[in-house]
Amino acid sequence: MPHEHATAPWDRIEELLEEGDRERLVAFAEELGVRETARALSRLEPEDRDRVLTLLPPEDAAEFIEEIPEEQAADLLGHLPTNKAAEILNEVDSNEAADVLGELDTDQAHEIIASMGLEEAEDARLLVGYEDDVAGGLMITEYLAYPETATVQEVIWDLQINAEKYREYSVQYIYVTSNGKRLEGVLQLRDLLFRPATVCIADIMIAQPVCVRDDATLEALDELFEEEAFMGVPVTDAGGRLLGIIKRADVQEGLAERADDAYLKSQGIVGGEELRSMPTLLRSRRRLSWLSVNIVLNIVAASIIAMYQETLAAAIALAVFLPMISDMSGCSGNQAVAVSIRELSLGLVKPFEIAHVWIKEFSVGVLNGVVLGALIGGVAYLWKGNPYLGLVVGGALAVNTMIAVSIGGTIPLVLKRLKVDPALASGPMLTTVTDISGFFIVLTLATQLLPRLA
Amino acid sequence: MPHEHATAPWDRIEELLEEGDRERLVAFAEELGVRETARALSRLEPEDRDRVLTLLPPEDAAEFIEEIPEEQAADLLGHLPTNKAAEILNEVDSNEAADVLGELDTDQAHEIIASMGLEEAEDARLLVGYEDDVAGGLMITEYLAYPETATVQEVIWDLQINAEKYREYSVQYIYVTSNGKRLEGVLQLRDLLFRPATVCIADIMIAQPVCVRDDATLEALDELFEEEAFMGVPVTDAGGRLLGIIKRADVQEGLAERADDAYLKSQGIVGGEELRSMPTLLRSRRRLSWLSVNIVLNIVAASIIAMYQETLAAAIALAVFLPMISDMSGCSGNQAVAVSIRELSLGLVKPFEIAHVWIKEFSVGVLNGVVLGALIGGVAYLWKGNPYLGLVVGGALAVNTMIAVSIGGTIPLVLKRLKVDPALASGPMLTTVTDISGFFIVLTLATQLLPRLA
Repeated sequence: MPHEHATAPWDRIEELLEEGDRERLVAFAEELGVRETARALSRLEPEDRDRVLTLLPPEDAAEFIEEIPEEQAADLLGHLPTNKAAEILNEVDSNEAADVLGELDTDQAHEIIASMGLEEAEDARLLVGYEDDVAGGLMITEYLAYPETATVQEVIWDLQINAEKYREYSVQYIYVTSNGKRLEGVLQLRDLLFRPATVCIADIMIAQPVCVRDDATLEALDELFEEEAFMGVPVTDAGGRLLGIIKRADVQEGLAERADDAYLKSQGIVGGEELRSMPTLLRSRRRLSWLSVNIVLNIVAASIIAMYQETLAAAIALAVFLPMISDMSGCSGNQAVAVSIRELSLGLVKPFEIAHVWIKEFSVGVLNGVVLGALIGGVAYLWKGNPYLGLVVGGALAVNTMIAVSIGGTIPLVLKRLKVDPALASGPMLTTVTDISGFFIVLTLATQLLPRLA
Repeated sequence: MPHEHATAPWDRIEELLEEGDRERLVAFAEELGVRETARALSRLEPEDRDRVLTLLPPEDAAEFIEEIPEEQAADLLGHLPTNKAAEILNEVDSNEAADVLGELDTDQAHEIIASMGLEEAEDARLLVGYEDDVAGGLMITEYLAYPETATVQEVIWDLQINAEKYREYSVQYIYVTSNGKRLEGVLQLRDLLFRPATVCIADIMIAQPVCVRDDATLEALDELFEEEAFMGVPVTDAGGRLLGIIKRADVQEGLAERADDAYLKSQGIVGGEELRSMPTLLRSRRRLSWLSVNIVLNIVAASIIAMYQETLAAAIALAVFLPMISDMSGCSGNQAVAVSIRELSLGLVKPFEIAHVWIKEFSVGVLNGVVLGALIGGVAYLWKGNPYLGLVVGGALAVNTMIAVSIGGTIPLVLKRLKVDPALASGPMLTTVTDISGFFIVLTLATQLLPRLA
């Protein structure tokens, strides 16, 4: 818990940096806690951030790196000298280190890995090869494994000798391997307790334990942990060799990250997570990459309006309702997108079940279209006293709501089948199509009824 | 893993229901696995769903209820006879049972609790009193606790006798309590191993263990698990009495749920999670509750356009750009909203740091506004060959982008201070304000320059 300070913590850190008082800086960071220190660092100038990280002992810096967002960690480490970054990453959990390295550009990542400890570098090379959302990318390489020929006594000796190191290992299983690290079995720590010391662990292990392949998806892992009560499961390669273990909490963390990601993408933060401590130009460029696609799509949609300028000029009241039809159709469609993305991630719907989703959406679309169309049609009618204006505006919104939920519900399934990220692409595609259809419907209807509207 | 079936699994379940073959139905559900069974049930008629749940043994049904979304679980159990629902919930983990009961209406929940087993009902009553996102709502009441006077031998005996029951307990700590269940200390299972059998556990426990109050927030819990390597921590009430334990994985699950929630809310799914297996009328009503607020806000914004009909009629080309300015400003603002909501949940920004956020956003807004304004202004100029049209449209979008990111960045902080859910309210408030300001800027500018536009 942060204490109350008269000055902001980042000002205090700057003072301590100026005084060059390393000891008090370390003590202050400890007192602040990981989260407040992260917040304070994000307010410092880049060179001051680097100095703080360089002054902290590598173990303290590592603890800090493990807990802040990957993007921020990569940003911080990327600015340090290679050997300093390597020194810190040596102390970071294998999967966290790999995630951070994955955020750096490839050359820099390889330079840092080359400066890391032998064992840590090997683990890092293995793990950075995997995507973040498969078993290989989520697993840790810190686990207990012994050859099948080991005895209970030998294992207990090793556990006692290395107690300090193993204390950090959070999964309390012992894996049994044969030559070439092939996974043969598993036992729980407590299984060692009531056994004669000379028994071979191969004789008391559970053979053919539940395990996952390194390319297992987050969905498959979630499903596995739903079915089974394990705290962790071993991960193997195609040859059955033990590569690491994956913990229940890490799968949950992966799911949380994916949900965060879906939220950020749906709001147009797409080039990776943005933090306000990043340089303004980078933030601007990343946001523009998405905005500029959107502006092109908007121009395409607006060109429909351009085609009907004469109708609009003759019945200018319609111009008031065009942004409304665009926005409301988008809202209805986005609701359907959100439900589809959620059902896809829960496994309640499969990407090929387009007809099922469409029927379910269309029935809601008819109801909501009629209600919203009647509302807006009523407003238009009351405003100008012209029932035809109400009919055109209300009718168009009603029909376009049905179109919007139909597209919104099914487009995530289609994108998933095409291996395009639905959270990313559904929104812009949906609004473009519904803008085009909405403007088209309202303006062709209006052209037909023009003598009665003008 | 589901096997290949010639018929859809839900058709097969219907067949088995008709045949009344309970044994094969149970076997079939087991073969399908939790997730495929959930999917199959969501495709059945409500009365068939009830029959399947009634036919499954309560332990099997409980496993199933634990793993499907709470909303779906509540929907299923809400339709069963009270005593059948209670029988199933008796077998469900305490925190999951409480979550499901929390989704039902209060009267029905209390009826079901009254039919549950004594111990389970007591736990359920305790847990349903808490919000989902505080320690009390996230904890489980299945833990190992012994009085401080117990000896190592007594604990080991109890562990051996109840091995079957405790196997389901996933946290491997033993809590030591004094009279009145006050939490006094903790020890790990392995701490029992190398101790004389007659030693009192109070003499080997770690006294004053890390613990959290029942009202600790999800953020505070996340922070605690970031700082400490524990798999679980005990939860106490104001008097220091042990109420339950909270697991690392449950905190991660809570975070995933909150992120999902933020995503769904931002897309207009606000009345609780929607699944397409729910009745059409309920889905329609829930979506409309949000859409109807939006349509009112849209009407307010559009009334600005209505005030400038003469300007619009004289320079009809502007009507093409109004929906575009509305949409693009909304997109820019939503990006800022997403970054603020993310930084708030990471603790990188505090709700009172409005000036800091505004400066960071405004600098990006100036850059993006100029780029987007130049783009759209250029298009307008090229289209009509009128530089003033480009100036009006481009200038308005540039200024409105700066306004949009300023509002988008700061509004989540303001809402958080007002204790309004930022994920829910930021979007509609943002788009209303930016629509109004966007339409106002473009149309007042146009009115000033009308002779040169027409």
